[in-house]
Amino acid sequence: MIFDHVRVVLVHPSHAGNIGASARAMKTMRLNRLYLVRPKSFPDSRAVMMASGANDVLSNALVVDNFEQAIADCHWVVGTTARKRTLNWSVKTPKQAAAHIVALPKKIQIALVFGCEQWGLTNEQLIYCHQLISIPTDEIFSSLNLAAAVQIMSYELHVAYLFSQARPPVSVSQAKLATTHQVSSFYQRLECLLKAIQFSNIYRSKQLIRRMKRLFNRVQLEAVEVNILQGIISTLYKRLGLKE
Amino acid sequence: MIFDHVRVVLVHPSHAGNIGASARAMKTMRLNRLYLVRPKSFPDSRAVMMASGANDVLSNALVVDNFEQAIADCHWVVGTTARKRTLNWSVKTPKQAAAHIVALPKKIQIALVFGCEQWGLTNEQLIYCHQLISIPTDEIFSSLNLAAAVQIMSYELHVAYLFSQARPPVSVSQAKLATTHQVSSFYQRLECLLKAIQFSNIYRSKQLIRRMKRLFNRVQLEAVEVNILQGIISTLYKRLGLKE
Repeated sequence: MIFDHVRVVLVHPSHAGNIGASARAMKTMRLNRLYLVRPKSFPDSRAVMMASGANDVLSNALVVDNFEQAIADCHWVVGTTARKRTLNWSVKTPKQAAAHIVALPKKIQIALVFGCEQWGLTNEQLIYCHQLISIPTDEIFSSLNLAAAVQIMSYELHVAYLFSQARPPVSVSQAKLATTHQVSSFYQRLECLLKAIQFSNIYRSKQLIRRMKRLFNRVQLEAVEVNILQGIISTLYKRLGLKE
Repeated sequence: MIFDHVRVVLVHPSHAGNIGASARAMKTMRLNRLYLVRPKSFPDSRAVMMASGANDVLSNALVVDNFEQAIADCHWVVGTTARKRTLNWSVKTPKQAAAHIVALPKKIQIALVFGCEQWGLTNEQLIYCHQLISIPTDEIFSSLNLAAAVQIMSYELHVAYLFSQARPPVSVSQAKLATTHQVSSFYQRLECLLKAIQFSNIYRSKQLIRRMKRLFNRVQLEAVEVNILQGIISTLYKRLGLKE
């Protein structure tokens, strides 16, 4: 697995549902190692319900007694924080932190640490972190759900990984594009048709065809589409009783 | 508000909790306009509970009867999809779609559309979309929670906004875009015309009109262009001696 060296650590999570939702969030983004520091209730059926199929992440989750245990063998600890801190931390964005993580060798053990729902991470816990990240939110309504924060960080890690693989994560249309020649001959017939039905007289002819070209050029027409449009023109000629 | 011109549309959401969690996700990222297309249960105390303070987003949410109503006055409709599609859509990443949205002028009405938990968006609904996005997930476990998908898209929009503020704005075409309503009525008349000239019989009717819609949606039609296309259709009816 890609992220076998990355663990998500939830410190004192108070809602079992959030544990399950975090497991689901992780698994969608290919993370699978979950550590729970003294969870209020675990195992819990609400966690299973919210995990919605990410049961392996839940059943492999490690429950530990204190924060230090969860990160003891880690080389790089990233803490999430919403509040402004008194200490002058250099706080990164999720994207920056994710780019850094995927650039690290896989033998480096990494922890992404999330504090409890009420207070986040304590100053004591933050001291252990090599890097702090803050998810940019509205300044007044900054209350991200715990699993939502896990989702965003996992997502950024996954995106950073895909980017590092230089594999485009997007699927590009494989449709065969029309050649300039095919498109030009469509334009010609369209122009003739518009003249034949005397539409071009109503609208200034040159400007009209220019506008139509601009419209269709913006699309990057596919070969199949040009065929359909040509078919429509042929049918119109026939029904109008006009000769080309 | 920054995102007053952006709405989140949830189509047939079946869990009230997801509506609340989506409202919360939106508000943390400064989005506030929520549309609900025939929700299974709303208002609902579970939505309020999961909104966790984003009550204004919930109480201002608009409940509508069908998908078309939710996007009728929109100029740019972005649909989320997980499944591979038969038609060759070009699918963007959330980041790409967000960068495009924040570059659009604020008078453009934008919809971010999310399908129901079970099936996502139907092909019928996707046809209305100018752009499709897919959140990159694990290929096997791709089941993102609805509110988690809303969270990621809202987050990317917010990040793109913050980024755009740090850079000079991109110049975009100032042409007046057509509304979904204007474009829909063009589609209707085009469909009738293709039936009247019996072109639709030659080509499979449903697939034909879907292809035409897909073609014109890719362009992001301007209001002037729709007027010209409507004018061509009117002239054709006249010359063909057909009644509408």
